[in-house]
Amino acid sequence: MKIDFNEAAQILKNCEDAYILIHQSPDGDCTGSGTALYHILEYMGKRARVICSDEIPKRYAFMRTEYRDEEFEPKFIIASDVADIKLLGKYKEIYGDKVDLCIDHHISNTGYAKKTLVCPDASAACEVVYELIKILDIPLTEEITRCIYTGIATDTGCFKYENTTARCHEIVAELKRNCPVNFAKINRDMFDVKSRGRLKIERAVTDIMEYYLDDKCTMICITSDILNEMGVESAELEGMAGIPLQVEGVEVGVTIKQKDENSYKISMRSANDVNVSDICASLGGGGHIKAAGCLLHGTLDEVKKKIVAAVAEGLKTC
Amino acid sequence: MKIDFNEAAQILKNCEDAYILIHQSPDGDCTGSGTALYHILEYMGKRARVICSDEIPKRYAFMRTEYRDEEFEPKFIIASDVADIKLLGKYKEIYGDKVDLCIDHHISNTGYAKKTLVCPDASAACEVVYELIKILDIPLTEEITRCIYTGIATDTGCFKYENTTARCHEIVAELKRNCPVNFAKINRDMFDVKSRGRLKIERAVTDIMEYYLDDKCTMICITSDILNEMGVESAELEGMAGIPLQVEGVEVGVTIKQKDENSYKISMRSANDVNVSDICASLGGGGHIKAAGCLLHGTLDEVKKKIVAAVAEGLKTC
Repeated sequence: MKIDFNEAAQILKNCEDAYILIHQSPDGDCTGSGTALYHILEYMGKRARVICSDEIPKRYAFMRTEYRDEEFEPKFIIASDVADIKLLGKYKEIYGDKVDLCIDHHISNTGYAKKTLVCPDASAACEVVYELIKILDIPLTEEITRCIYTGIATDTGCFKYENTTARCHEIVAELKRNCPVNFAKINRDMFDVKSRGRLKIERAVTDIMEYYLDDKCTMICITSDILNEMGVESAELEGMAGIPLQVEGVEVGVTIKQKDENSYKISMRSANDVNVSDICASLGGGGHIKAAGCLLHGTLDEVKKKIVAAVAEGLKTC
Repeated sequence: MKIDFNEAAQILKNCEDAYILIHQSPDGDCTGSGTALYHILEYMGKRARVICSDEIPKRYAFMRTEYRDEEFEPKFIIASDVADIKLLGKYKEIYGDKVDLCIDHHISNTGYAKKTLVCPDASAACEVVYELIKILDIPLTEEITRCIYTGIATDTGCFKYENTTARCHEIVAELKRNCPVNFAKINRDMFDVKSRGRLKIERAVTDIMEYYLDDKCTMICITSDILNEMGVESAELEGMAGIPLQVEGVEVGVTIKQKDENSYKISMRSANDVNVSDICASLGGGGHIKAAGCLLHGTLDEVKKKIVAAVAEGLKTC
């Protein structure tokens, strides 16, 4: 059942001993919104834990929190920034049908929870949590400020993407007026700093970038061989799909990642008006207008040919 | 003489036939603030021209404006985002001592103009111009919105740097509430899109990056040989100084650009607390705490040694 902000705030006020589930492959927004919810509940004198199927990556560790109280059995299950129970990973079986309250911003939220507060206009789950903080009149501590800021900043690509609304700039202005946090340091760590391995792989994929369709389509192919050769882990590949779009004049950027011998995961991004959701749908996949994907089988050459043909069709419709 | 916002607004109301000078090597902020000032004056029924010593780069051309009226002799000279008359380039001789009104945000403004409105707290000259727009009650057209947004976004590294204040988020929120401009497209063009030449040189400099002082100092050396070899123009090098700082764990990033046979231009950037202004001062240069520079003479090896020794001293003080 869909609920509004006031009801969600009331539910948080009344809950006890909560587990806050966030999605697998945790990012800045689920970590930030989950941890902010933890601080809200802690402020209200409740026990809570942030629970994730995967370990929180080191880069988000600055949001990690020392739990004051001992372990406990949850009486209430919250999911934050989780659009689908599939994203609970190993916790799907245990908690998938037991989520009492879901707080999210994905329009694709499947409505799996008993009560769902979903705001598709919000740039980030952290934006939704911020509105709850205002309703609940929780003080904006440094910890909460860091969490909310990080979620909004990472989900908007540091205020770069189309989902960066006036409201999210207003929230950040309020955060900055209220609490002296080193926001520039967070930005640097989230957006600028790269491991040597990451720099190496970015350089390598730029080296092997291929150009098709009058250079309107760029493509990078990350095969298992390349990864092995570089000694780079596949976790280093997060966010790589944006690289082919960097080139001036490109309309569609394609990233091909080898899954096994004859199967490839395709990520497609659109720079402007080409609808890559349609293109990927024609290849058996789907997604958003500007970011979509599919899974293709065959040799790498066959896969590339299928993609180029589909992108050529997509370019025609623009 | 320093003046306040109200006086500057009054002066704009009373001026006629204005030339708006912006600094050489024009960037998003001087182009944006100069062009926004043009639109303000045009709205008030005045003739104006934006004048720059260098051609406006293609990437900022979307702010260029068709002048409705014929050429004219200026009766009033405005400088926007120009901290020092040296930055007027070839117009320094003609207009250097004739600037009636300077609008700026650089704390280093030399006060060369008859009247100066300088706001060191403002992230960008465009932020200063925005406050004038509010006082003058000028409508926020698409053109003005694009100009103000671009200046603030580019001078803050898309809201990433320390100069990104609460006020600049508030202004952007107001811009977004007022006028439907494709902000994401501006961001993409300003921050994501790179020419093939730029991608090539970025790859090359990452390849030759050197690590010193327990990897706390990274260095890239762009010699004339490398540039010739790549066929890359030195205009492609803008913003390159940030690259050595991308590496995880680095405190000081150094970019060395060869000027001629035995002289090298050094740009130094600090990731966190090291004061590179002090380090560059010890090498005969200067700048800001986090971004400074100097000019060194000698062989490349001698230059590198001097730099590493100075950075080692700088690291000690932290």
